[in-house]
Amino acid sequence: MFHTGCAKVMPPDSAILSTLQRVVGPANVLTAKEDLIPYSFDGTAALRQLPGCVVFATTTEQVTEVLKLANNTRAPVVTRGSGTGLSGGSFPAPDSIVLCTARMNRVLELDRANLALLVEAGATTQQVADAAGGAGLFYPPDPGSMKISTIGGNVAENSGGLRGLKYGVTRNYVMGLEVVLPDGTVLWTGNKCVKDVAGYSLRDLFIGSEGTLGVITRVLLRLIPKPAARKTIVATFERMDQAAQTVSDIIAAPIIPCTLEFLDRTTIRCVEEFAKIGLPLDCEALLLMETDGHPAAVAEEAATMAEIARRNRAREIHVAADDAEAARLATARRSAFSALARVSPTTILEDATVPRSELARMVSFVEQTARKYNVRIGTFGHMGDGNLHPTFLTDEPNADEMRRVEEAFKEIFAEAIRLGGTISGEHGIGVAKKSFLPQFAGDAAMRVMKELKRALDPNGILNPGKMF
Amino acid sequence: MFHTGCAKVMPPDSAILSTLQRVVGPANVLTAKEDLIPYSFDGTAALRQLPGCVVFATTTEQVTEVLKLANNTRAPVVTRGSGTGLSGGSFPAPDSIVLCTARMNRVLELDRANLALLVEAGATTQQVADAAGGAGLFYPPDPGSMKISTIGGNVAENSGGLRGLKYGVTRNYVMGLEVVLPDGTVLWTGNKCVKDVAGYSLRDLFIGSEGTLGVITRVLLRLIPKPAARKTIVATFERMDQAAQTVSDIIAAPIIPCTLEFLDRTTIRCVEEFAKIGLPLDCEALLLMETDGHPAAVAEEAATMAEIARRNRAREIHVAADDAEAARLATARRSAFSALARVSPTTILEDATVPRSELARMVSFVEQTARKYNVRIGTFGHMGDGNLHPTFLTDEPNADEMRRVEEAFKEIFAEAIRLGGTISGEHGIGVAKKSFLPQFAGDAAMRVMKELKRALDPNGILNPGKMF
Repeated sequence: MFHTGCAKVMPPDSAILSTLQRVVGPANVLTAKEDLIPYSFDGTAALRQLPGCVVFATTTEQVTEVLKLANNTRAPVVTRGSGTGLSGGSFPAPDSIVLCTARMNRVLELDRANLALLVEAGATTQQVADAAGGAGLFYPPDPGSMKISTIGGNVAENSGGLRGLKYGVTRNYVMGLEVVLPDGTVLWTGNKCVKDVAGYSLRDLFIGSEGTLGVITRVLLRLIPKPAARKTIVATFERMDQAAQTVSDIIAAPIIPCTLEFLDRTTIRCVEEFAKIGLPLDCEALLLMETDGHPAAVAEEAATMAEIARRNRAREIHVAADDAEAARLATARRSAFSALARVSPTTILEDATVPRSELARMVSFVEQTARKYNVRIGTFGHMGDGNLHPTFLTDEPNADEMRRVEEAFKEIFAEAIRLGGTISGEHGIGVAKKSFLPQFAGDAAMRVMKELKRALDPNGILNPGKMF
Repeated sequence: MFHTGCAKVMPPDSAILSTLQRVVGPANVLTAKEDLIPYSFDGTAALRQLPGCVVFATTTEQVTEVLKLANNTRAPVVTRGSGTGLSGGSFPAPDSIVLCTARMNRVLELDRANLALLVEAGATTQQVADAAGGAGLFYPPDPGSMKISTIGGNVAENSGGLRGLKYGVTRNYVMGLEVVLPDGTVLWTGNKCVKDVAGYSLRDLFIGSEGTLGVITRVLLRLIPKPAARKTIVATFERMDQAAQTVSDIIAAPIIPCTLEFLDRTTIRCVEEFAKIGLPLDCEALLLMETDGHPAAVAEEAATMAEIARRNRAREIHVAADDAEAARLATARRSAFSALARVSPTTILEDATVPRSELARMVSFVEQTARKYNVRIGTFGHMGDGNLHPTFLTDEPNADEMRRVEEAFKEIFAEAIRLGGTISGEHGIGVAKKSFLPQFAGDAAMRVMKELKRALDPNGILNPGKMF
């Protein structure tokens, strides 16, 4: 197989290290084992590998020099932002140079007239949200890790969040990118135009390419006006099918809420233990619904959504009176992962996604599979998007359980594919899911993807062993 | 240069023709000169070339067989829908096989639960709009030629329309594609999931690739709920800068109207001569503004937009009382191209686009350039998108004037690039603008685009001579 991790593996030798030190300054190259350990994993469970060294770039020119060196010496390079990824995208290849862009974190330009924001790749999603908010504008993508995740990482993974149904994902807000190619060439793709159809959309090829085609150094983002009003509702249901029907009825209304999230019974219990917010422990589903926009539209949509939940026999329905209460209601969903992570030594957060119409089927398949393999799974996620996060509560040293977890995974992904879904809605392939990609994408798409990789990274130095 | 039209040119010989006839049936292969003439041009001025033959495919399997044959014999293939393109994307290469998908025009599935519509590539944009509308849903992209343009052509060119500012362009509504690769392999990319980040976005690579990477045979489209209300306003201004300031103030309000179009003085005059709707002939600009959504939001936004126009000294402001009047007001904009085309033997519709903030500067540059080269240009377009259509009113046999038109073009595109704009907002590169692409895209992007083309179409059979 072509370059599935075929970059020649050799630890960065002293000549390479001294060149790297010259390029970025000695303080920006880490080589001691104790310094490398924090860079030996990302947010993905059960993956650890020490890199050869860690290099912090602070300018595009430095990224160019690092890549030229790596390309000439065939040294594998793994780009990393804050390392919050959930598919092992920035998990180091053995003896690789980890190229960290987190210190390239300036907000360069806020252009109100064109509703555009130019930032360096290492700026955090929160910095972006704050810069937009400070100008009365709005950057909608809000991945769970947004307080620390970098925008470069968000673009590389095409991150989602809680507002995907109405507002789309990171891809929908990228107007332009500066990317350094493996040979050090700096490429700019995109501009501040609302429309641009001149040539292939290289921008869209780099978005979601998980650091395998180039290193993103700058991002030009599209902002939108801030919605004037917002209303948050939480409803609990004794049965999952009632929640699923509520979601279907809302879409059929038709209403496209900005948020339509759910928690299953296991997650509800873990959240209640953790946050003590008075959730009913005998309910199969909790829905968090949010609508935003013009106050009149918001008021009507909120009333309709509450009515739909009532018609589907919601046990309780809370409509937030104000922002503080909305934030409190959203806590249940926002703390879902932390709450699940508390109850087991190892938490494996998955990302199966199906067409919305297949969601109830998928949720019950996950439950069956948990019973079949005797594993604990808490499921939460973006119900409006069909994007589920079945979360395995396990213990890595328990080899027998980990095998069962693995088997359960496989069945869940196979079912997602069978239902017309995808193996990743928002976390990416990385190493965690590369074994599932061929079954999902099919031979023709796999062949084309490999051809694209070969065309752009002929020496296979970028993120070897990822995706393919 | 790599495969800029380097597919071996040889007219389809009798063996090839008889194979084509076997594949699609003799009635679906045209070879007589009089039958080929209608396929010797598209919507682009001053381009005419007879193809070797025209083949109508009715199934994906037939497309596969045609491409296999072409790839094996190195015969150039030019895919064509309705031939309404404005950059020569479906203009035939010499002796090429024109592969026409217009007879693959079935609407295959309307999936309400997932707000998705599956159609064959030859379905017209109007069929798509009607299928969506029939289900109470909405397909926003509305290119000028939508009554006859095919959705396959829209995807290949990433077509825009009058609603781009608020709703985006064709790319934003494509969930999935079936594409036949040059070697006949059928590739499916995308699905009905709202989110999908598994692998490179091949879908986005094919969108806007202008028939140079594969033949699109099926399209899965995303639909949205129909806006409940709509309000149309027309305002006329004595000076262009007043209109430009109105647009800036609307965006700063912030309001994102679904339509924000303008006509310049030359276009206003031509439209008035043509349609007799009472437009003031001494005004420099007409703005057509439309807002849609919740009735309360629409009422407020319409009032604010009218007030902003008033503050910027609009001469007259008409707010449509109902749909019929809205349609009448929109006539001025919708008939702009036809009205301009009436007054001169040759009409060359251009597509320069700049960041919105540079629009007034660009409009006045176009006017200066018209004076400098003593050519007539009527400009209209999508002011909210920064997407101008300077339209040259000329006469092809007048070689001297055509030379001046050519020079004026060059200066206009160079200025668009200088202002951070693009050489095509929605019409594509094709043959008409390929000489401008290197200056716009730069060396690095050109190199990558050519590498992508080579990776996907190694024999260069698809649409040779286009884009590069």
